[in-house]
Amino acid sequence: MSLIDNLNWRYATKRMTGERVPQEKVDCILDAIRLSASSVGLQPYTIFVIENEKLRKQIQPVAWNQPQLLEASHVVVFAAWDGISEAQVDEYMQNIATTRGVAEETLTDFKKSIMGSITSKSQEQQYEWAARQAYIALGTALAAAAEQKVDATPMEGFDPAGLDALLNLKEKGLRSVLMLPLGYRQGAADFLASAKKVRRDKEKLFVRIP
Amino acid sequence: MSLIDNLNWRYATKRMTGERVPQEKVDCILDAIRLSASSVGLQPYTIFVIENEKLRKQIQPVAWNQPQLLEASHVVVFAAWDGISEAQVDEYMQNIATTRGVAEETLTDFKKSIMGSITSKSQEQQYEWAARQAYIALGTALAAAAEQKVDATPMEGFDPAGLDALLNLKEKGLRSVLMLPLGYRQGAADFLASAKKVRRDKEKLFVRIP
Repeated sequence: MSLIDNLNWRYATKRMTGERVPQEKVDCILDAIRLSASSVGLQPYTIFVIENEKLRKQIQPVAWNQPQLLEASHVVVFAAWDGISEAQVDEYMQNIATTRGVAEETLTDFKKSIMGSITSKSQEQQYEWAARQAYIALGTALAAAAEQKVDATPMEGFDPAGLDALLNLKEKGLRSVLMLPLGYRQGAADFLASAKKVRRDKEKLFVRIP
Repeated sequence: MSLIDNLNWRYATKRMTGERVPQEKVDCILDAIRLSASSVGLQPYTIFVIENEKLRKQIQPVAWNQPQLLEASHVVVFAAWDGISEAQVDEYMQNIATTRGVAEETLTDFKKSIMGSITSKSQEQQYEWAARQAYIALGTALAAAAEQKVDATPMEGFDPAGLDALLNLKEKGLRSVLMLPLGYRQGAADFLASAKKVRRDKEKLFVRIP
């Protein structure tokens, strides 16, 4: 199936069966997240993969008691870096140097330009920039899940402070941005499973300048 | 090729050949953008597809003179709604009603919940929320371009006010967020074409809670 077919197949699943997503499918979705693009390649986020049922039960009340959080087998949490430190940029430079077999000194200008961009932003703006990158990863994860025929529900609707507290994100320098339960659609209980996909008309969504 | 293969194939292309991307491939990438997920399904953005060379030449100086803007054949601009109006939400409700053949009255609670979320945000926060949704669409577009073996360069690095002025976005209630030139890699001139992809170690990127 093509990406277009997969995107037509997927939808924001409201009810799931509880069936467990096999590890290799979860790993494939995580591989896609890891390969996602991000600004300057920094990947300024940490991804939590929660299978633990007790923790998922604790998450439910800070997320409007949405049933997918328990009916899924895994909940992926995208947490953005709450501000970017020079040490994090240095770690990235070391990763480039090691991966490509180049001297770190050759990356001086690249590092300077990244640090210039970061230090021009407040901590809140740095977080906001990191959060935006997590949305690219979410887009990739949704395509990957659909290819694996795994259902997924992108979720912004939760109390971030409550989730941050449950995962001790503050002390890790992180803030929760998105959740993505992974599981299998329970068609009969989910009116959206058979509902037609609604999208803006091409004529309104796109402006072509030939 | 699988999504993972496609993601490994793609990279943020720095130099392109000028060869034109066929219309059907551009359309396929736009279809994928249109099928992207967005919060509550609102798709709060407008997508400009610029083939016009004169306009792309005008854009270059507000985008660090990046060569891809002319070496690509099309430049896609993602512009987020600068604040969300009730009329825009109503148009979405009408679209749902028409597409699914349901009465608009059945959507009263859905509309209320969307308006509640929107009116709890300042205009700047509404824009920021809309901009985040555009990043999901960017993630989808990158997957679609890679599937089509079309090269693409996700760009945050430009002067948004300058681009907004060129496209008259302010009077349209829009603000530019991202650009994505589409074209074909010029391997010999682009050191990144053969450079190994750098990604954070799985052990650092992922936290598994079994």
